[in-house]
Amino acid sequence: MAPSALADIYPMPTRNHHKANVQASVLVGPKQVTVESRSISDPAPHELQIAVKRTGLCGSDVAYYKRYRNGDLQVVAPLTLGHEGAGIVVAVGDAVTGYQTGDRVALEVGVPCDSCRSCQRGRYNLCPKMAFRSSAKSVPHYQGILQERINHPAKWCHKLPSQVSLDAAALLEPLSVAIHSVRRAQVEQGSTVLVFGAGTVGLLVAAMAKVSGATTVVIADIDGGRVSYALRNRFATKGFVVNPSRYLQETTEKINAAKSLSDEAINAATGDESDFEGVDVTFDCTGKEICIQAGLFATRPGGKVLMVGMGTPIQTLQMSAAHLKEVDLIGVFRYANTYPAGIKILSSGVLPSLDNMVTHRFRGLDAVHDAFELAGKTVDERGNLVLKVMVEL
Amino acid sequence: MAPSALADIYPMPTRNHHKANVQASVLVGPKQVTVESRSISDPAPHELQIAVKRTGLCGSDVAYYKRYRNGDLQVVAPLTLGHEGAGIVVAVGDAVTGYQTGDRVALEVGVPCDSCRSCQRGRYNLCPKMAFRSSAKSVPHYQGILQERINHPAKWCHKLPSQVSLDAAALLEPLSVAIHSVRRAQVEQGSTVLVFGAGTVGLLVAAMAKVSGATTVVIADIDGGRVSYALRNRFATKGFVVNPSRYLQETTEKINAAKSLSDEAINAATGDESDFEGVDVTFDCTGKEICIQAGLFATRPGGKVLMVGMGTPIQTLQMSAAHLKEVDLIGVFRYANTYPAGIKILSSGVLPSLDNMVTHRFRGLDAVHDAFELAGKTVDERGNLVLKVMVEL
Amino acid sequence: MAPSALADIYPMPTRNHHKANVQASVLVGPKQVTVESRSISDPAPHELQIAVKRTGLCGSDVAYYKRYRNGDLQVVAPLTLGHEGAGIVVAVGDAVTGYQTGDRVALEVGVPCDSCRSCQRGRYNLCPKMAFRSSAKSVPHYQGILQERINHPAKWCHKLPSQVSLDAAALLEPLSVAIHSVRRAQVEQGSTVLVFGAGTVGLLVAAMAKVSGATTVVIADIDGGRVSYALRNRFATKGFVVNPSRYLQETTEKINAAKSLSDEAINAATGDESDFEGVDVTFDCTGKEICIQAGLFATRPGGKVLMVGMGTPIQTLQMSAAHLKEVDLIGVFRYANTYPAGIKILSSGVLPSLDNMVTHRFRGLDAVHDAFELAGKTVDERGNLVLKVMVEL
Amino acid sequence: MAPSALADIYPMPTRNHHKANVQASVLVGPKQVTVESRSISDPAPHELQIAVKRTGLCGSDVAYYKRYRNGDLQVVAPLTLGHEGAGIVVAVGDAVTGYQTGDRVALEVGVPCDSCRSCQRGRYNLCPKMAFRSSAKSVPHYQGILQERINHPAKWCHKLPSQVSLDAAALLEPLSVAIHSVRRAQVEQGSTVLVFGAGTVGLLVAAMAKVSGATTVVIADIDGGRVSYALRNRFATKGFVVNPSRYLQETTEKINAAKSLSDEAINAATGDESDFEGVDVTFDCTGKEICIQAGLFATRPGGKVLMVGMGTPIQTLQMSAAHLKEVDLIGVFRYANTYPAGIKILSSGVLPSLDNMVTHRFRGLDAVHDAFELAGKTVDERGNLVLKVMVEL
Repeated sequence: MAPSALADIYPMPTRNHHKANVQASVLVGPKQVTVESRSISDPAPHELQIAVKRTGLCGSDVAYYKRYRNGDLQVVAPLTLGHEGAGIVVAVGDAVTGYQTGDRVALEVGVPCDSCRSCQRGRYNLCPKMAFRSSAKSVPHYQGILQERINHPAKWCHKLPSQVSLDAAALLEPLSVAIHSVRRAQVEQGSTVLVFGAGTVGLLVAAMAKVSGATTVVIADIDGGRVSYALRNRFATKGFVVNPSRYLQETTEKINAAKSLSDEAINAATGDESDFEGVDVTFDCTGKEICIQAGLFATRPGGKVLMVGMGTPIQTLQMSAAHLKEVDLIGVFRYANTYPAGIKILSSGVLPSLDNMVTHRFRGLDAVHDAFELAGKTVDERGNLVLKVMVEL
Repeated sequence: MAPSALADIYPMPTRNHHKANVQASVLVGPKQVTVESRSISDPAPHELQIAVKRTGLCGSDVAYYKRYRNGDLQVVAPLTLGHEGAGIVVAVGDAVTGYQTGDRVALEVGVPCDSCRSCQRGRYNLCPKMAFRSSAKSVPHYQGILQERINHPAKWCHKLPSQVSLDAAALLEPLSVAIHSVRRAQVEQGSTVLVFGAGTVGLLVAAMAKVSGATTVVIADIDGGRVSYALRNRFATKGFVVNPSRYLQETTEKINAAKSLSDEAINAATGDESDFEGVDVTFDCTGKEICIQAGLFATRPGGKVLMVGMGTPIQTLQMSAAHLKEVDLIGVFRYANTYPAGIKILSSGVLPSLDNMVTHRFRGLDAVHDAFELAGKTVDERGNLVLKVMVEL
Repeated sequence: MAPSALADIYPMPTRNHHKANVQASVLVGPKQVTVESRSISDPAPHELQIAVKRTGLCGSDVAYYKRYRNGDLQVVAPLTLGHEGAGIVVAVGDAVTGYQTGDRVALEVGVPCDSCRSCQRGRYNLCPKMAFRSSAKSVPHYQGILQERINHPAKWCHKLPSQVSLDAAALLEPLSVAIHSVRRAQVEQGSTVLVFGAGTVGLLVAAMAKVSGATTVVIADIDGGRVSYALRNRFATKGFVVNPSRYLQETTEKINAAKSLSDEAINAATGDESDFEGVDVTFDCTGKEICIQAGLFATRPGGKVLMVGMGTPIQTLQMSAAHLKEVDLIGVFRYANTYPAGIKILSSGVLPSLDNMVTHRFRGLDAVHDAFELAGKTVDERGNLVLKVMVEL
Repeated sequence: MAPSALADIYPMPTRNHHKANVQASVLVGPKQVTVESRSISDPAPHELQIAVKRTGLCGSDVAYYKRYRNGDLQVVAPLTLGHEGAGIVVAVGDAVTGYQTGDRVALEVGVPCDSCRSCQRGRYNLCPKMAFRSSAKSVPHYQGILQERINHPAKWCHKLPSQVSLDAAALLEPLSVAIHSVRRAQVEQGSTVLVFGAGTVGLLVAAMAKVSGATTVVIADIDGGRVSYALRNRFATKGFVVNPSRYLQETTEKINAAKSLSDEAINAATGDESDFEGVDVTFDCTGKEICIQAGLFATRPGGKVLMVGMGTPIQTLQMSAAHLKEVDLIGVFRYANTYPAGIKILSSGVLPSLDNMVTHRFRGLDAVHDAFELAGKTVDERGNLVLKVMVEL
């Protein structure tokens, strides 16, 4: 990582003469967010200074908010959350070319080391030294974007064309996960795809599978509202609601429950095809064991099951289903080289409009607490679907 | 090849007891087509008997019609033309399952040997023993489909769902070329694609590139009518007309002409992108040296140029443009494993409607001569665009 | 599948006039093998008749022998075992070209349908209608090769050059599994590979990884004799003995045991490399949960774990290790398109000699019982290593 | 590119307090090399200072030496040549970890920008901003390594294990081209490979094809001494001498000459194989039109022709041979991510010894002129083969 990228992590006191104060939302304990003042230098030579305008809240943000930890990662110092964002350039580092103040940008908030073998192979998402904003993995924590302004390496900022809104730009982060997923899956033209989970990522994965030429895209979720949303907005071509009482309780009959869920998915997928081999690709965006297992059953010989959603770390699976059919089990961890493609996809109009994915909107850092409270729910107090909660500054 | 597949080529006299007569259009010399009566057996155990209902005329058919040869391939005995077709099952061989009379089918008219290494690798289009209907390559010639009924291996017939019309089914053959092209190119989501040639294949390649996620598809042709057609019907997102007087005459300045054509294409391709690397993939559907050369110039480092259209066999190219940028030059010869995908694509509605690609229609074998005369032109006597000429039976 | 291929399964009584009797070893119950006389026709048009000369005994044969079943597959009628074989052509079907009596051939004993999508894609090992000799999967069972003569489709016989011995030819079957494994793994030049299991398949996988350019090949087994054999004969570059008391007992600490095994493997793998990322590919040839789990831990980000050995169908695995590092889990089921490559590899001398892999040899069908008794053991009564037990006729 | 990487190109005067003088070999005109004194700073934070110990001379160096230009690239200011090198660390930049003085390193002398899309995709060899030592492409020129000491980014230095000699390390540069070539070709186990050209790169490509599992490697050259060398040292399994009077003169019969050369190559390749499809991969390491053309003829359907050697920029080729057989034409430009693999390959002993590839050795910068004079020849005055000429400091 270039030294400048670590500016927020390691103190580099003598770098710049000018300092300014910015307001930042800071998580200081479970469900405790405050607004604090923080000092910010001028941007380093290869950095841009960005006034953050939009931050979408993500499941991992909500996990940190609720428990001051996310899975194994314990927060050890005040942490600014937020990593799905877009903003406006307010200052340009000396060595940066091609940018000027006023440019609108999307932020790619993971900064890899540029030197390890994963980085050099072009799979920088696997960089073991990756500094990712709003994550407690690196210590000191690399601070998230729920603050007025940040300095960020110009290399990891992506200029937006006029037809891409700031809202859509904030959604480039989950869209990147979806793009990376369909690339890793090598979705073919005319294929049949099954998606478990119809949250933001599942919806975008389904939509990207369609963009990639999949002609049947079946989406399944335990929430009927999400499935309807997916079908109504043409993110998927078919869908069904998973009955949790049938499938999702702990049972000694887990494998049989997964077979049954697979049957339901295959029934949803097959139409005129007399000779159905199974789905070509299953994307699990839930992290649930039963969905991965159902994917192994539902996928055709030589197909693929993608593990997109983070879930139970330890799973009991009938691996022979993958082994005998040569169904590859492929993990998806974040994304690499997706932002330029994502911007072209958003500009071109091939996706269904993402505007109404932002179901709720909060304004100002003082509203972050309320935003997180809502983002942890699937419906709001009026019973409306909660998909993406956006914080505007 | 199973013995039955060769029924039309090699006499297998004792196979069946029942014989019937069918009428066939037969080419017996340059521009000389007659209608003759031909004897047909009952289908062999693994065959279907198909009443041919639609035959699209293709450039290679027209070449045979005009000169009684196609490139190096000389016709040596009366030859029934036609290889883009669909029809209705009228008899079912004893060993065939899954079919009954009345089923509508598309015909995949190339019958590979099933035993050579290319076949076993799944690239049966490269089978050196391929018997392909309406081609003079194998002797005796494997007869084309411009006849009332044919026996064809059930394995190479593809059942049509109700939403796929017989016209569209006849277009599955050129669509197969397009599917094979985008597969070999591995078109990525969000990519920029350049297509030279806006005839049937070029149009379908452009449309399949869009189906595969390309967000910018530039099509170019010397015929302005075809370019307009492509844009009006959303086969491509951008297009331009190639001025043949600027580019296509023989000149000592060939390479410079290609550079200029490449510049024109790149100007057409770039919009908001400040930092254009070149197009990701160029598909040449013309077979013209200048287009392949322009493709080598216009394609980005690490991109691909696909040779789709058959053209001048010997070409003078600045290969260093491919070498220094690692632009792969990839040939496309027919197709393999495309019909099932093509049928799903036609069923799903992801393509622009292909109905109006059939610009002219002739009825009955007696009209074949007139059909060929028109198919050799780019506009009809009223000045309307000629795209696909279809013979109905 | 061509009709002839099913000759042994379905009665086709009128096919040939001439019949002869052959002796066959037949399994009629657990540990009950008898020698019976069986009628054989002349070869069908596309078949060869082969005098079987060598049959290697495989783990699945031993499973059937011991329990009259193999996993879920119950034998339901007398079954001739044996599927790793080579022999000599004694009669040639009318339609076969390129063969004459006296030709030495290896037998590829799985006969796919040639028509399903898996077959047409070139992945015929995944054909759902595959008839595989000596397996109880298809009913009536497709009989194995422990008989004096068999008729077999010429397409699935592979002519042997003079420098390939019949013993080596019989080993082409497990070698095919190894070739298929390294192809699916896309082993790169200079890579580090870990192989769990040093039986016939594990040894051949290790050797093929070396042939593919892997420069560090670590092999591990609970049997020290096998590990020594692998190192002494240069099948691998490094090895270690797995202590079963440390690792292989059922324990609540399974994941930690796997981590510890992974550490041991990584220690064995790293030499001068200061900055070890993990192994590039792990091949599990044991089917043991702990080995697959250790592979997930030991493999570098972006690497692969191949499931080669059949094992416990239901496994509890820390899938997050695969997910977060994008380590693909890839199944290997038999092989496709491997025999021609295998014969070239055996001819060329790039492998260590396979001659001494045949550690024990039995002659005649009457000896089959003794051969199976020994094949179920890892050492013989003198304490010598048992690798491949070969039956000669 | 990090700022430090451009230290030799752009003046960064205030960076360091300490300066020292080093002697450098400098090309100032055609065949005019002098030794000059040059000032060198302490290494920048991310740089190492390397005492250069070995420099192999390459064809492009010789071209610059002879004509003060290389193809289209004109030298515009004094240029130090040399880009195949190894040396010893003499100073370590402040931000560098993992190195200490005395470490032996190989130098990867192309420094890409790290920010363009080619770099981020992992194909940094295609970076349009690549600064490559000893090339006249970037202005001011990025100086080569024929000097006592240089500062080089630590990221592009590769630490050598004890078993890799400095001579072998200097050969890592051409070996990298060979590794990149076999990776792009995806050479399969058991394949048949044809290599045109038996200079350093051709020899190493042949050897790497063997390391990758090719079992037949045919090498061809117009120089009988090189072919003998290749066979005697087991870089290839077969070889033949190309008769230039038969093939390489300008003629109207170019295509026929190429067919004839292809026939000769196929005769050399086929042994016991009754049913030869053609070679799987052809590597052209000559840049000659006739060899690429012969490769298109000799390669099997679905195979590949790799353009490795730079040659005539504009070529007349029978492209239909590539088109109809789907033989991909693939360029190789330098290399990416090859040094770590190359070091493991050299360490492991899987290659034939490279020691005797260094046929001639010169000591000191004053000997550079004589070294270049010899490097331009194929035999020395005693008639001995000239392969790699090495300059030692």
